[in-house]
Amino acid sequence: MRYEEFTIEGKHAVIEAFRSGKTIDKIFIQDGCKDGPMETIKREAKKRDCIIRFVTKERLNQMSGTGKHQGVIAYAAAYEYAQVEDILKIAEEKGEPPFVILLDSIEDPHNLGAIIRTANLAGAHGVIIPKNRAAGLTGAVARASAGALNYTPVAKVTNLTKTMEELKKRGLWFICADMDGTPMYQLDLKGPIGLVIGSEGEGVGRMVKKSCDFVASIPMKGNIDSLNASVAAGVLAYEIVRQRML
Amino acid sequence: MRYEEFTIEGKHAVIEAFRSGKTIDKIFIQDGCKDGPMETIKREAKKRDCIIRFVTKERLNQMSGTGKHQGVIAYAAAYEYAQVEDILKIAEEKGEPPFVILLDSIEDPHNLGAIIRTANLAGAHGVIIPKNRAAGLTGAVARASAGALNYTPVAKVTNLTKTMEELKKRGLWFICADMDGTPMYQLDLKGPIGLVIGSEGEGVGRMVKKSCDFVASIPMKGNIDSLNASVAAGVLAYEIVRQRML
Repeated sequence: MRYEEFTIEGKHAVIEAFRSGKTIDKIFIQDGCKDGPMETIKREAKKRDCIIRFVTKERLNQMSGTGKHQGVIAYAAAYEYAQVEDILKIAEEKGEPPFVILLDSIEDPHNLGAIIRTANLAGAHGVIIPKNRAAGLTGAVARASAGALNYTPVAKVTNLTKTMEELKKRGLWFICADMDGTPMYQLDLKGPIGLVIGSEGEGVGRMVKKSCDFVASIPMKGNIDSLNASVAAGVLAYEIVRQRML
Repeated sequence: MRYEEFTIEGKHAVIEAFRSGKTIDKIFIQDGCKDGPMETIKREAKKRDCIIRFVTKERLNQMSGTGKHQGVIAYAAAYEYAQVEDILKIAEEKGEPPFVILLDSIEDPHNLGAIIRTANLAGAHGVIIPKNRAAGLTGAVARASAGALNYTPVAKVTNLTKTMEELKKRGLWFICADMDGTPMYQLDLKGPIGLVIGSEGEGVGRMVKKSCDFVASIPMKGNIDSLNASVAAGVLAYEIVRQRML
């Protein structure tokens, strides 16, 4: 049941979901639909930073499972999100320096799931994702995580750079990967650390990169540009594991 | 054009493809279909170790792009396979000890593509896959490889353990990953090496594992069993990169 992806259809059901405090990841609204309840939905969605997509009626008909969408379909989180504080608490309880993986706009659910799986096995205490421009914790993510979502907390934050600034005050250092960085083997990755992984297409955003203390590079010996995002996350996370084991 | 996945439909077209030496990855035959040309197709398919699936007429109708499958649809390789010898030649030309990645039955095209991408960037000289029980070089694999398939040769062999025995005579050592292995940081991975990656579900097969010189373990600190296959390949390949850079 925890793995089910929730689809909520119809204006009143969606408004009810917002009222009950359910986390809505994404909302599809029929283009041009402007009545009272729909305006309430748009307002609530904006207030909670949830992604709104305007689509045609035909698209909604295709997506609908009930055939009664009334111009709106919402995707609710299949999974409960944690708070950033919960992640720090786990590190503290284990007596380990915090190790957090932050994802700047990973959109592919397979990559997101694989990274949560890696986070679990590399001993990261949690994963932080931004509310916007990222895949939510859907059923596909849960499946790709191979069960890791049952153990590794994932927090969703409104502003990734703001969260990074707050975590810096708690002693964390942030590294992200980019081609122009210092070879990762030359960096000291043993302390309290936040590892920032960029999106599949664009890498780490400019503002997020500016907030990082170090830029690490993975040696690239080939002809193409970059590793798959979940592979890059694995390689970097395990360099942290290696250094912490020394 | 090189990225197109070729679907060949109809008895004569499929027989013609076999005659012209095209690599057929998989063949779908209508259950119960037993005429002369179909027997020729089955015989040719078996001779070349290509995968045969018997399916219903309805399934073939669904798969068919032309509507004229006559009971048979073949999937041809979208890409040309290399020979194992080509891979060794590349290592020799670069003056580097051979570094080959062998995949024991990776079935997911995204994983296969991501591993070819990793192979390219980690400086592996090529990838070897078994003819059976594995994804072929389809369009989906090419896309997931992010262009790496243009540079990194992939060879397809009938018997992975036999190929390993031949490569051992050429000086290669083989390592595979398993939970009960030696921590990878303690192994010397600098020489001529074949890295064997197991399938998503089952890991490395018993016979293949027996043929390996070393079993390496990736430290697992979490609650679940294993990393995603392409992430595990990345972590191991980059431990080889790290040691070779020392």
